[in-house]
Amino acid sequence: MVQLYNFSPGPAMVPKDVLMQLQSALIDYDGLGLSIAEVSHRSLEFKAIVDQSIQDFKTLLAIPDNYQVIFLTGGARSQFSMIPMNFTSQCNSAAYLDFGHWGHLAIEDARSYCDVKVVADNRNNQRSSILAEDQWADYSDCAYLYTVDNETVDGLELNFIPQAHNVPLISDMSSNILSRPFDLSRYGMVFACAQKNLGIAGISVAIIRDDLLQRSPLSGTPILYQYQHILAKNSLPNTVPTVPWYALSLVLRWIKAAGGLTVMAERNQRKADKLYGFIDNNDFYINEIVSDSRSRMNVVFSLRDESKNQSFLQQAKQAGLYNLKGHKAVGGMRASIYNAMPEAGVDALIEFMQAFAIKIK
Amino acid sequence: MVQLYNFSPGPAMVPKDVLMQLQSALIDYDGLGLSIAEVSHRSLEFKAIVDQSIQDFKTLLAIPDNYQVIFLTGGARSQFSMIPMNFTSQCNSAAYLDFGHWGHLAIEDARSYCDVKVVADNRNNQRSSILAEDQWADYSDCAYLYTVDNETVDGLELNFIPQAHNVPLISDMSSNILSRPFDLSRYGMVFACAQKNLGIAGISVAIIRDDLLQRSPLSGTPILYQYQHILAKNSLPNTVPTVPWYALSLVLRWIKAAGGLTVMAERNQRKADKLYGFIDNNDFYINEIVSDSRSRMNVVFSLRDESKNQSFLQQAKQAGLYNLKGHKAVGGMRASIYNAMPEAGVDALIEFMQAFAIKIK
Repeated sequence: MVQLYNFSPGPAMVPKDVLMQLQSALIDYDGLGLSIAEVSHRSLEFKAIVDQSIQDFKTLLAIPDNYQVIFLTGGARSQFSMIPMNFTSQCNSAAYLDFGHWGHLAIEDARSYCDVKVVADNRNNQRSSILAEDQWADYSDCAYLYTVDNETVDGLELNFIPQAHNVPLISDMSSNILSRPFDLSRYGMVFACAQKNLGIAGISVAIIRDDLLQRSPLSGTPILYQYQHILAKNSLPNTVPTVPWYALSLVLRWIKAAGGLTVMAERNQRKADKLYGFIDNNDFYINEIVSDSRSRMNVVFSLRDESKNQSFLQQAKQAGLYNLKGHKAVGGMRASIYNAMPEAGVDALIEFMQAFAIKIK
Repeated sequence: MVQLYNFSPGPAMVPKDVLMQLQSALIDYDGLGLSIAEVSHRSLEFKAIVDQSIQDFKTLLAIPDNYQVIFLTGGARSQFSMIPMNFTSQCNSAAYLDFGHWGHLAIEDARSYCDVKVVADNRNNQRSSILAEDQWADYSDCAYLYTVDNETVDGLELNFIPQAHNVPLISDMSSNILSRPFDLSRYGMVFACAQKNLGIAGISVAIIRDDLLQRSPLSGTPILYQYQHILAKNSLPNTVPTVPWYALSLVLRWIKAAGGLTVMAERNQRKADKLYGFIDNNDFYINEIVSDSRSRMNVVFSLRDESKNQSFLQQAKQAGLYNLKGHKAVGGMRASIYNAMPEAGVDALIEFMQAFAIKIK
């Protein structure tokens, strides 16, 4: 049987070890005789999973004491509303970067709650680069600066942490959290959904500094959209998705066992360098993103001859390389190569791309 | 090894067949070579699961054409806010029944959005019965009448469908949906979380009549709290919890294979009758709920000698009977006997309770 590699942007590939442990726990969790799906979210057993997940995030990201780790449902998208609802009651204007699909959607959602100031926008250059900070408008009077650390659809990634000065920096790290170490103390908040680098769909994480948590939510903010409330209930304000949460805890353990974020970062850089290197040196494929804005997680590329797209996708699938189709908003191809994608998967992709290019020419 | 029975109110027992299928799909879903956790929510394979889930609900509940089946995240609790946010823009007062823990919480959440009219309240009789409709205040000027069909914590269940006249009836059926047939056409909306009768935590269902769906949400309702938006996106407004959803689809298949809701209702009635019958005929145990208000799903009971509670719970666990402790708001014991609890589990519980009573006396 062909070894499969799943290049989906999310739900994405999950480490095989994690799937095996999850499979076993589905029938008998930790010798309890119950399925992990049947373990109460109020039990001591589940509390241990919750506490360990928080502790593992703290360890992996060296989280300072004045930050809280919160788990939520509803995907990252729910936080597009939660962030302005929770943080703009004192100052009603908020700064956003429009560098891709997800930043743009966050802006649209935020407009219901505050005056959105778009401080930089790369649509004029066809979303081919992250504009440098000296080209951003002033945002010093804003409640926060919102960024997307990695634009999953467009294949762009910030390779720096904005200065932000005294404005709290909030970052959507859905598609690159735990893919490399970073200085969390530069942020007011970071958040991410699980189904890319953290496991399976159904759970999200937010890491929030105490001063932001002290802001009052706007009137009318639903109780489950209030970060303060979720924190006060230790992330268990109601029945949480226990199986996705357990899967997340296994992924955290897998990252730690592999050597932590430094090892992840090295692997991810090597995978991305190989793939971009191949694309840049093969005139059959093209990636037009400025090199220092390229995502290490989502490598977008096109075939110069787009009439070959369907054959490419079909033959890739036959070769065990799944879900390479680009997002419909962008077209072309996209290889998502998160933490769980082994280097051998990238090698197999390159080998296939090379063979396809030769055969078609 | 002792056969275990899990009497947890939720996450509750899951049919063994469902767990086995889920376990297998975690490594290879339907011969794809991918885990169900890795299947894209945008794929044809997942669309088939979505379509089948909708169709199975329509079949099982004989849902008329002017109702829509919607799936959501965030648990039933999120709908405590969503309901007033979506349905009170034209008429700002809404009617609620305060017959137990969950109805009371829904009232508290609704107060942020509308003028709540509590039309009946059983706190004066220690939540021992559902008040008959002729004791309810008038609610004919309200946007809807909100009921909880089964009060999980208090052990009460409605054994009738309120007349409601021209006011849309909205019912939280989290703990008894698909436990018996009922006339859906009498309701404007019913909703339920999955982790009791529908599978595992992480997904909820709402079945809503078209006229309610045409009401405009209040200004400021988050995009993922708008039923209209979720429906327009075919319940896939963002990445959904795919594994819980798949588990739900397996439970629906399991119910259909077992013979549907008539068979479920017979089994559930027989289990409840046995257990209440035993309690009423044994002076060691007590249930003070008026007989026609008793829940078929959550059987609350106390030991007359409450100093024996700890021994009861410990020895029950040794006998393989898990999670019998009552909710902290009520105390005592509670046996949750949803669809997935086999009759043999109730027999084992009765046998244990009898032996415990004899031994302690």
